[in-house]
Amino acid sequence: MSDHCLSKRLLAEFIGTAALVATVVGSGIMATNITQDVGLQLLGNTLPTGAILFVLISIFGPISGAHFNPAVTVVFALRRLLPFYNVVPYIALQIIGGIVGTIVAHLMFDMNTIEISSKIRSSNALFFSEFVATFGLIVTILLGLRYAQNSIPSLVAFYITAAYWFSSSTSFANPAVTIARSLTNSFSGIAPSSVIGFMTAQIIGSIVAMFVAQWLSNEITSVDSEG
Amino acid sequence: MSDHCLSKRLLAEFIGTAALVATVVGSGIMATNITQDVGLQLLGNTLPTGAILFVLISIFGPISGAHFNPAVTVVFALRRLLPFYNVVPYIALQIIGGIVGTIVAHLMFDMNTIEISSKIRSSNALFFSEFVATFGLIVTILLGLRYAQNSIPSLVAFYITAAYWFSSSTSFANPAVTIARSLTNSFSGIAPSSVIGFMTAQIIGSIVAMFVAQWLSNEITSVDSEG
Amino acid sequence: MSDHCLSKRLLAEFIGTAALVATVVGSGIMATNITQDVGLQLLGNTLPTGAILFVLISIFGPISGAHFNPAVTVVFALRRLLPFYNVVPYIALQIIGGIVGTIVAHLMFDMNTIEISSKIRSSNALFFSEFVATFGLIVTILLGLRYAQNSIPSLVAFYITAAYWFSSSTSFANPAVTIARSLTNSFSGIAPSSVIGFMTAQIIGSIVAMFVAQWLSNEITSVDSEG
Amino acid sequence: MSDHCLSKRLLAEFIGTAALVATVVGSGIMATNITQDVGLQLLGNTLPTGAILFVLISIFGPISGAHFNPAVTVVFALRRLLPFYNVVPYIALQIIGGIVGTIVAHLMFDMNTIEISSKIRSSNALFFSEFVATFGLIVTILLGLRYAQNSIPSLVAFYITAAYWFSSSTSFANPAVTIARSLTNSFSGIAPSSVIGFMTAQIIGSIVAMFVAQWLSNEITSVDSEG
Repeated sequence: MSDHCLSKRLLAEFIGTAALVATVVGSGIMATNITQDVGLQLLGNTLPTGAILFVLISIFGPISGAHFNPAVTVVFALRRLLPFYNVVPYIALQIIGGIVGTIVAHLMFDMNTIEISSKIRSSNALFFSEFVATFGLIVTILLGLRYAQNSIPSLVAFYITAAYWFSSSTSFANPAVTIARSLTNSFSGIAPSSVIGFMTAQIIGSIVAMFVAQWLSNEITSVDSEG
Repeated sequence: MSDHCLSKRLLAEFIGTAALVATVVGSGIMATNITQDVGLQLLGNTLPTGAILFVLISIFGPISGAHFNPAVTVVFALRRLLPFYNVVPYIALQIIGGIVGTIVAHLMFDMNTIEISSKIRSSNALFFSEFVATFGLIVTILLGLRYAQNSIPSLVAFYITAAYWFSSSTSFANPAVTIARSLTNSFSGIAPSSVIGFMTAQIIGSIVAMFVAQWLSNEITSVDSEG
Repeated sequence: MSDHCLSKRLLAEFIGTAALVATVVGSGIMATNITQDVGLQLLGNTLPTGAILFVLISIFGPISGAHFNPAVTVVFALRRLLPFYNVVPYIALQIIGGIVGTIVAHLMFDMNTIEISSKIRSSNALFFSEFVATFGLIVTILLGLRYAQNSIPSLVAFYITAAYWFSSSTSFANPAVTIARSLTNSFSGIAPSSVIGFMTAQIIGSIVAMFVAQWLSNEITSVDSEG
Repeated sequence: MSDHCLSKRLLAEFIGTAALVATVVGSGIMATNITQDVGLQLLGNTLPTGAILFVLISIFGPISGAHFNPAVTVVFALRRLLPFYNVVPYIALQIIGGIVGTIVAHLMFDMNTIEISSKIRSSNALFFSEFVATFGLIVTILLGLRYAQNSIPSLVAFYITAAYWFSSSTSFANPAVTIARSLTNSFSGIAPSSVIGFMTAQIIGSIVAMFVAQWLSNEITSVDSEG
């Protein structure tokens, strides 16, 4: 899909995921610093996240595909849109990038480099939210690639903007970002003990989404021949 | 308009309407959970709804036309943009999808599967609001199809963003969504006794809009020949 | 510029200006009904106005040019983008449309059909704000027409979104809308005694903007030959 | 890049930077005038700034390149996208424009023409924030020019929208704007004693960004041959 060498693509995944997490974590810290209204805090967390996603996918998409998300990377490999031997390095750099993003946000707000979140996010409703949110994200990306390729940056940005509010979990929908957010004890944090539940729900949502999108867009065979 | 088989188009209408209602109802629940300011609640309901409309119309438009709304389906059939024998299955799946959307939202927020709204929305001002809001929605879609086809997802998203605030009813403008919202006793609910009044106003608004848009865009005859 | 007959163009100007004013006035009423925070009220007034401008200019632009504003109509005539004999009927329908917009907003919110605003907006700072805001609007439209024609709906929508906040007057920037807003005693109203001051500033801002845009875009002669 | 004569390009840089600063300063004054909630104040400062950036880059980009920022001008000259002898006049007009923007904002809100900010913004966390924010801005612009040229206005607008919230400094990211903001003692002000620290961080961020973007987009040689 991209003719950039692997090292450039990995740097794009690294910087992109770091910037995404720095925005999610940083804007959460900013929001709680300046207002007591939780509705306004979530708005101050949502708008920057949607905005930076548009930017990051626009500028890094042509280099690495702008996944920033292991769920997306795995689905792309299964759909033969990414070579399988790229999956492990992509995910590794996404996870490292996410952690660096948390650190950068902490340093920008004069906080400890890393802290462990104490915010338990564990209930069937939250896990179901992550299933729904990730299902929707993957369907959006796969149908977007098929029917509205030039709108992918807007589609993901607007989808996440909506998902922050329609789900009780505020839509993490990304295993690398979930790990990174376990290392901040601020607005956007998640206790390490809740991470596995979130990741499991995200993976199941991704797989189901892949089959639904394939059936809807009739691509089971055409992808094979493109592969 | 679309060469997808009917079952795929119906699935698109089902998922799309479910996602739309899950966003409307879910973001309303989220908003009232986290802030007491009703202005902020409405903002937290408006932005996700506008955002998800952009996404859903972009990705499902090429499959089913992305109506998600019986008023749109009927107008499209009258304008010969949809075969008449598709009208009943489309509307059925929109209504079922909407109800599933309410259930999904409730499950994400750990609430009862279905509840009956006790929020009476019944006054001439509210009915007139629904007439105006639906009139504007249908004019926007029909003139958009004629003059700005690539902008339809943005046009509907922005129109509904505005209509949430310019009308006293917060612009339901959709009979299937109105039914689905009668099954939640949260921010976005509507008492079943008010549903008929809303739907009547929406239908009248749609019909008037169709004639105004036809005259403005001079298409009375050209549609016939396209049909 | 448009091959639509005059009656269709006038209807577009009428409906468009009515919808614009109904949104400005209606969202102002909604905002003050549901929150006490004036910042949130202005936000609830700004976002719907920007959103509906995008919609109205997209769908009515190809019919009438989507002026909805006597200042724009006069500048277009002076730039020979509109026949001079269209100026009076355009402005008449804009003024009538604006007044109907106020009435529609009042009826949607169960208020008196028309009321006289008691909100005095009269000071040099306010008049200077209107001069700046209208200057910016006309420069945006004229340079947009020259360099970014497909973005005109976004440009005007985003410009007005900004101008609501950068000016102390919240940027009326439109004589027809100013008249219409003198007939509502709500958030967006303006006392009739302040209207002349606002309109004078708007007209001066428009004229200055026209010359600056002409010089910047080097079109003094090319417009003549296009005319 | 542009065939406009230097005087027109300088006027574009002057008006554009003035409008940018008038929006940043004016919306900050408006926001603090109408709400006590600092979260809402920042939102009321962010949205107009993002919106006006979209407008200004769209309409002035084809004339001057729409830098409005000495950091951008220097990077463009180093990348040979702007002749070196344009650098000093560009920066001069950006600084003068920014100061005029502050004055215009003050006059619109009936304040003293110029005042000296007493808001100390001096800490490693703030300087690091400016480094990160400017690094991101320059990477966004350079990769945007290479991969998404038509989206530059959206990219910068959305990037700054995000950066207002992800950084503790609210992302000045612009030496000319930093100087201009030292002359207002309002929400967006910065004490003159903090200006040098901010500017140093901005310059370092720009230089680092230039090398990262060059390596990522593989343009070290191709730029030379284009130059």
